[in-house]
Amino acid sequence: MPEPVNLAEKLGLVKEPWKPAIVGEVNDAYVKVAKFQGAFTWHHHEHEDELFLVVKGTLTIRFRDGDRVLGPGEFIVVPRGVEHCPVAEEEVHAVLIEPKGTLNTGNVREARTRDTLERM
Amino acid sequence: MPEPVNLAEKLGLVKEPWKPAIVGEVNDAYVKVAKFQGAFTWHHHEHEDELFLVVKGTLTIRFRDGDRVLGPGEFIVVPRGVEHCPVAEEEVHAVLIEPKGTLNTGNVREARTRDTLERM
Repeated sequence: MPEPVNLAEKLGLVKEPWKPAIVGEVNDAYVKVAKFQGAFTWHHHEHEDELFLVVKGTLTIRFRDGDRVLGPGEFIVVPRGVEHCPVAEEEVHAVLIEPKGTLNTGNVREARTRDTLERM
Repeated sequence: MPEPVNLAEKLGLVKEPWKPAIVGEVNDAYVKVAKFQGAFTWHHHEHEDELFLVVKGTLTIRFRDGDRVLGPGEFIVVPRGVEHCPVAEEEVHAVLIEPKGTLNTGNVREARTRDTLERM
């Protein structure tokens, strides 16, 4: 049966930036928590929209047409096919909601690509 | 192009309890904000899981096997087919994520059933 999930508690268990962990599932999507620090990789997701909700800190998402800046309590949906690059000057705590098959680095493979994700 | 959405700002525009408004879409789901006050209706959703994230206040969700209580920063996913009844003793601000076709009262029709939702 369903149980409440505390986002701050789950985020406290995340030790490594850019390594999302699965904390729930809703229909065909996973709910993930992640910490971001520094600049990620420019990438896009061919078939998946990706929701970022900021819980703590300030997240910049770079797009080819300019930056978007999100604070706590703000979300953005990056549509499929749209190139983006998340950047966190200081540590950011975030929630991601995206289809179960979504790879964190989208169309790019690099050292931070995570083919499997931990469940918390 | 995508723009950030501030949840508190959108929730400030919601005037009526139990009347969710659409504030975003991600894949096949809508992101909605809603205010809850009082007791809703026991219902279930035949084919849709429903995510509730509490932004403000304390939300009780009654299930046939007992209550779950959520505070700010906590979410729960109510699986399809599971009867539930949200209750807010004092006003609650929440985010809902659920498939686009989801009706707020699920399998029940009553005065608070919303066949169409406002977009904010």
